[in-house]
Amino acid sequence: MKKITIINGPNLNLLGTREPELYGNENFLVYLKKLKKKLSYDIEIIYYQSNSEGKIIDILHSVGVKSDGIIINAGAYTHTSIGIADAIKSISSPVIEVHISNIYSRESFRKKSYLSPVCNGTIFGFGLKSYELGIMSFCL
Amino acid sequence: MKKITIINGPNLNLLGTREPELYGNENFLVYLKKLKKKLSYDIEIIYYQSNSEGKIIDILHSVGVKSDGIIINAGAYTHTSIGIADAIKSISSPVIEVHISNIYSRESFRKKSYLSPVCNGTIFGFGLKSYELGIMSFCL
Amino acid sequence: MKKITIINGPNLNLLGTREPELYGNENFLVYLKKLKKKLSYDIEIIYYQSNSEGKIIDILHSVGVKSDGIIINAGAYTHTSIGIADAIKSISSPVIEVHISNIYSRESFRKKSYLSPVCNGTIFGFGLKSYELGIMSFCL
Amino acid sequence: MKKITIINGPNLNLLGTREPELYGNENFLVYLKKLKKKLSYDIEIIYYQSNSEGKIIDILHSVGVKSDGIIINAGAYTHTSIGIADAIKSISSPVIEVHISNIYSRESFRKKSYLSPVCNGTIFGFGLKSYELGIMSFCL
Amino acid sequence: MKKITIINGPNLNLLGTREPELYGNENFLVYLKKLKKKLSYDIEIIYYQSNSEGKIIDILHSVGVKSDGIIINAGAYTHTSIGIADAIKSISSPVIEVHISNIYSRESFRKKSYLSPVCNGTIFGFGLKSYELGIMSFCL
Amino acid sequence: MKKITIINGPNLNLLGTREPELYGNENFLVYLKKLKKKLSYDIEIIYYQSNSEGKIIDILHSVGVKSDGIIINAGAYTHTSIGIADAIKSISSPVIEVHISNIYSRESFRKKSYLSPVCNGTIFGFGLKSYELGIMSFCL
Amino acid sequence: MKKITIINGPNLNLLGTREPELYGNENFLVYLKKLKKKLSYDIEIIYYQSNSEGKIIDILHSVGVKSDGIIINAGAYTHTSIGIADAIKSISSPVIEVHISNIYSRESFRKKSYLSPVCNGTIFGFGLKSYELGIMSFCL
Amino acid sequence: MKKITIINGPNLNLLGTREPELYGNENFLVYLKKLKKKLSYDIEIIYYQSNSEGKIIDILHSVGVKSDGIIINAGAYTHTSIGIADAIKSISSPVIEVHISNIYSRESFRKKSYLSPVCNGTIFGFGLKSYELGIMSFCL
Amino acid sequence: MKKITIINGPNLNLLGTREPELYGNENFLVYLKKLKKKLSYDIEIIYYQSNSEGKIIDILHSVGVKSDGIIINAGAYTHTSIGIADAIKSISSPVIEVHISNIYSRESFRKKSYLSPVCNGTIFGFGLKSYELGIMSFCL
Amino acid sequence: MKKITIINGPNLNLLGTREPELYGNENFLVYLKKLKKKLSYDIEIIYYQSNSEGKIIDILHSVGVKSDGIIINAGAYTHTSIGIADAIKSISSPVIEVHISNIYSRESFRKKSYLSPVCNGTIFGFGLKSYELGIMSFCL
Amino acid sequence: MKKITIINGPNLNLLGTREPELYGNENFLVYLKKLKKKLSYDIEIIYYQSNSEGKIIDILHSVGVKSDGIIINAGAYTHTSIGIADAIKSISSPVIEVHISNIYSRESFRKKSYLSPVCNGTIFGFGLKSYELGIMSFCL
Amino acid sequence: MKKITIINGPNLNLLGTREPELYGNENFLVYLKKLKKKLSYDIEIIYYQSNSEGKIIDILHSVGVKSDGIIINAGAYTHTSIGIADAIKSISSPVIEVHISNIYSRESFRKKSYLSPVCNGTIFGFGLKSYELGIMSFCL
Repeated sequence: MKKITIINGPNLNLLGTREPELYGNENFLVYLKKLKKKLSYDIEIIYYQSNSEGKIIDILHSVGVKSDGIIINAGAYTHTSIGIADAIKSISSPVIEVHISNIYSRESFRKKSYLSPVCNGTIFGFGLKSYELGIMSFCL
Repeated sequence: MKKITIINGPNLNLLGTREPELYGNENFLVYLKKLKKKLSYDIEIIYYQSNSEGKIIDILHSVGVKSDGIIINAGAYTHTSIGIADAIKSISSPVIEVHISNIYSRESFRKKSYLSPVCNGTIFGFGLKSYELGIMSFCL
Repeated sequence: MKKITIINGPNLNLLGTREPELYGNENFLVYLKKLKKKLSYDIEIIYYQSNSEGKIIDILHSVGVKSDGIIINAGAYTHTSIGIADAIKSISSPVIEVHISNIYSRESFRKKSYLSPVCNGTIFGFGLKSYELGIMSFCL
Repeated sequence: MKKITIINGPNLNLLGTREPELYGNENFLVYLKKLKKKLSYDIEIIYYQSNSEGKIIDILHSVGVKSDGIIINAGAYTHTSIGIADAIKSISSPVIEVHISNIYSRESFRKKSYLSPVCNGTIFGFGLKSYELGIMSFCL
Repeated sequence: MKKITIINGPNLNLLGTREPELYGNENFLVYLKKLKKKLSYDIEIIYYQSNSEGKIIDILHSVGVKSDGIIINAGAYTHTSIGIADAIKSISSPVIEVHISNIYSRESFRKKSYLSPVCNGTIFGFGLKSYELGIMSFCL
Repeated sequence: MKKITIINGPNLNLLGTREPELYGNENFLVYLKKLKKKLSYDIEIIYYQSNSEGKIIDILHSVGVKSDGIIINAGAYTHTSIGIADAIKSISSPVIEVHISNIYSRESFRKKSYLSPVCNGTIFGFGLKSYELGIMSFCL
Repeated sequence: MKKITIINGPNLNLLGTREPELYGNENFLVYLKKLKKKLSYDIEIIYYQSNSEGKIIDILHSVGVKSDGIIINAGAYTHTSIGIADAIKSISSPVIEVHISNIYSRESFRKKSYLSPVCNGTIFGFGLKSYELGIMSFCL
Repeated sequence: MKKITIINGPNLNLLGTREPELYGNENFLVYLKKLKKKLSYDIEIIYYQSNSEGKIIDILHSVGVKSDGIIINAGAYTHTSIGIADAIKSISSPVIEVHISNIYSRESFRKKSYLSPVCNGTIFGFGLKSYELGIMSFCL
Repeated sequence: MKKITIINGPNLNLLGTREPELYGNENFLVYLKKLKKKLSYDIEIIYYQSNSEGKIIDILHSVGVKSDGIIINAGAYTHTSIGIADAIKSISSPVIEVHISNIYSRESFRKKSYLSPVCNGTIFGFGLKSYELGIMSFCL
Repeated sequence: MKKITIINGPNLNLLGTREPELYGNENFLVYLKKLKKKLSYDIEIIYYQSNSEGKIIDILHSVGVKSDGIIINAGAYTHTSIGIADAIKSISSPVIEVHISNIYSRESFRKKSYLSPVCNGTIFGFGLKSYELGIMSFCL
Repeated sequence: MKKITIINGPNLNLLGTREPELYGNENFLVYLKKLKKKLSYDIEIIYYQSNSEGKIIDILHSVGVKSDGIIINAGAYTHTSIGIADAIKSISSPVIEVHISNIYSRESFRKKSYLSPVCNGTIFGFGLKSYELGIMSFCL
Repeated sequence: MKKITIINGPNLNLLGTREPELYGNENFLVYLKKLKKKLSYDIEIIYYQSNSEGKIIDILHSVGVKSDGIIINAGAYTHTSIGIADAIKSISSPVIEVHISNIYSRESFRKKSYLSPVCNGTIFGFGLKSYELGIMSFCL
């Protein structure tokens, strides 16, 4: 059985209510429950969400040696946090970057990701399906 | 009665002692007490201060549906935090950005505000009076 | 009694007809009349409007020693006129910069204000209420 | 009968004497007379020239609701005037931008036009013929 | 009789179906037939379209000595092709640049034209009428 | 049964021999055959490769109305071709952008994708598995 | 006898009162009177001052064929006015640019002069003596 | 006896395991113990580490009036945190910036330090010895 | 006997007629014939010219394993084609970049070569002699 | 009697032979002799020329306390030497910057002077007369 | 016994007299004598100072194989000299960069050091104590 | 017999010992001796090397009228010296720029050459063979 950790960053706790035209109107925990049912792979999914950059670094440190894969949607910190990028480089588990929306068709400050260069792969623009594809990337 | 939330960001807990030539030498809580007395409007003011970007996002989430107005002085995060800007966009209460000093007559990195484009209005340069004008903007 | 001067720059004579979704549909003179009635402060408001950069400099020179406060909405000249900024520095009356719309959520060339660094304070994004807050800033 | 307004900006009063290798050696009023004779369309052409940015804004305001078409060669203000661009957006008559010379094969500061994005169309590089093509654009 | 060559670049073969709110819903060949009927001038119009940068250079070489005028709408290559600009400089026929839409009111990468500095004139923003004005520019 | 089109751009015909430390040493056609066997979904995969920008635009036009999904790895054209981006916007089939390597951990000129903003989603950094995830994105 | 024209731009009418630590505290007309007395050369000095860009262009046009030399201190327009630069290029009299203060040791936006490239010479940083040196440059 | 505070920022808790080719393979607490033994000066060293920007600001506030010297290695926040820089300016204890690696021979985003301009001195590139030199700087 | 391939890019088929003051007035095939006679080395020269970026990539692929040396003058594609640079990196034959003119004394967009960093050497500014020096570089 | 030092920088020893269309064809020593005769002021002129940045700094140090005025034309070092600028700040004699040609109408890298901000005044564009005006600036 | 070489660059011969508020008022040779007395380590210090970039390179070449450590304060050349950086890379002795003042709190052109990336470590902002710390860095 | 002058700039005296993986391990004087033997042309080669910018300018002045050709490898000064570029423009002998390594595949600050625009031709990336090709360029 694979152990996959999903880490959501700032404001993603509001998924389903925040700017639904951009992020959809599905609550993430509800989505996760549905997804777990659907997935035929033998996977344990552990889920974290935090609005704090420091807390996300803490989480990466603590799960970074015992996860078979980490999926991170660092939200706004994608574009501003060298600290999270450094944390990803510091751990041994493979890390996949996902985004719900197409970050390259929005404001210009969202076109720079500090995480892409240090992640194993990146998936964005597929709505919540981005997470599902991220999980699959560890199972193919 | 209107419910107004004031959120102060990093280092503003030192107001009155920090660089008094820039920020004045009045403690914010003392100022707030004086201000409440002076204001004739029927207003409840709730006050938060945090040095943590993540905590400020948490506060915005929790007060963002039940305040009649939010006044935020995000201090240094004004210039670096996309996460706080995203939080402001995610909530329904109107948000006003204030600054004590004239941020456009200081270092060049203070001339960029991530918050201005997502706030309902911006007021800066009036010293502590910026807060009072911010409150008034909800009462005119 | 306080003497407050309001100076409006280019195209603001069209207020009420020009791009009403941005600037509202109220004529400025009508607004001013209403505002004067509403204000309880003992204030004389003198109003100027000009589409000419040179004329605005002339006005600042002539009112800049005898006004208790000047409120300037320099419109497009905000972003291009070093001459008006120099004039503001040259006079002794305090000057407040106001804008009707949120200039930081529009075209990128509107994100630079030559006036902000030389004004005593700046207020924008509140619609015509920006002027009222500007007047109040001299009366608190 | 169509009413077309031509507005020429700074230094264009010197046409015919100023840098003839760039702008030709024909006086504009003489050209206009010849052009009127040649044109078979039923057109009234009203002509303005000013070296003042503010005056050009005034003219746009006054002709901007009663012209069937406006042709503007704002000269140097093309590259520096947000105020004229705002005026064009503020009026209802369609506006065409013309230039005598090829502004994109000259100094780099002439490669930016504030007017192009707000005009209905742009024509440049054809010498004085640019004006004739501008008039035709309203008559095809 | 004048020989005019029209060269359309990439994606312009889809005119009438592609993004009709930007480019109109008229097929170019249908338009061309109508235009030929309407034009009173004694003109032969030869029409080329290609999605290939190299092919457009080939066409310019082959028509560039025997056309009385060339009208080029290089589409996306306008903004990226130094090769087409070089080809225009290499031939003796006069070349006019046209665009259907206002390229200066769209994405920022469309605000740079490699062709403008080397063409005899430029016309854009008039819809398909831009081509008609281009033809006229050779006949006035 | 779904019809998926895969379009590979310049130099991808050399996959398996070109810079194997970056792109792996597996020939794409061999990979595709293996992939088809492995996939349990009912999918028809049509494969194109071209080194020519114009040819890729032609292909997009021809498959863009009859494919259930298009997967494009435009190689170097990702970073330079506005024409291919325009073609993607011009067609109705959904398009997914994939890359074998992590384009954001390489030369800086590879950090800009003209295609990302106009594609439905983007997947990169997973080696040849990026294609498999792209196909899955149409089947979840 | 030589005819020298001095043209002062915006805010220079306040010389002597405006920011005296930068510009000195001598009124320009008083200075001019003293200077005329002191000068042994046979010179007629004509003096203009205007706060309006358009007016300065008008003045240049009118004096630009009959002056033996023009000395211009365009103040803030130095840094923003392509129109005045074009006017200088349009006239036949030699033009010298002067500044009272050292414009290169002040704000960065004062480090660009549109006039320097089109003037015969430039003199700055000598206080009011810059004008005297400018006059001498026509008499040596 | 001097009271020196050492504050380590994000990911420095992993020292000894994280990217050892860059940061060495010695755990910081072990290093600190050895260092204390070696130092002949009469010094008390208090040590903090946090991955949170807000927490580091809190620490600076609390130790910033009672330390004889502060040594900060803010890790990734060096390059992104205006808030920590503001905190350093807000306190009275002298602050020294140190880095283990040579931050100027790494990624370009590490070449900008918000802290250098507000610290009393900076020491980097000496490995863990940078801390020892930092302590010495308070004792010479 | 050495096998040298020369590849000329866009517009170089016009050599001898195109902008002769820049490129000389000698036809390339004539030049090549003369050069072959003059060269004492035992060399077979194969010559290609194409105006198409994709075709040049195709040629590089096909000659890139069997040539002892390749000399490429990619013309305008030098400055815009990442695809050709990738092709050069993908093949095993050594590649030399040549230019007839001094590309660094022309337009600024010609000062960037995507090919220089991936070629074995670069020679430019010697007129057609650049090719001869390129051949010699394989024979010394 | 005033002691004025003139320091000429690199390549100015070639004056009279180097690019005479830019710098004139008069040898500097010949010019200096003529100038001394012409000047009625009681002045001793000491002249230095060096092609070495370090030597010019040495000269400034040695003459910088005993000259009544220094005139420096640092030639190319004007645009690259922070060291000479630092030397000028380090000495007590007033320093005037002169240039023969109009450095702002030439290559863009000549538009930046490290010396202007630290000199007492700047004079350029008057040919060799710039030196004479520089001397006069110490004598008015 | 260790052999340490100190190399001071341009204008540092004026230490003690030049801008004492920035650099202190102690002559370097006096300082060095005091320092040698104070240091308990067994160290021979050889001292060089030159205002010439080329001379500093010469010195580095000559001491660069026989010093146990080199301390360089290249003054203004820090920000402009690639040649000195290359020299440091060319020699085998370890090199430490020091500065007296905090180069990151001064003019922006002092914020770039060509030397930092090629030195073993950097120390600045401690006044003359920076040299002492540099020496210690070789002795810990 | 032709007289060719070779001028090597800073750090090239260390050729053979400095960074041999970049510059090879052959001493330049040894190389020169071998080269002279090999060359069949009737050439006299004069060789200079200096680490000083000013000295290189001096050399160019002294050999610049009597050499049939000059080959310059200005090393680091290539990227920083406007003075050497001016010297090259000031002399009449043709000058060829050479580099041993491929300066465009190294640090970004080596991608700018002040010399390329003023030299007759440029050759780089061929190791020491670049010099031989440079000599040949004068003999073909």
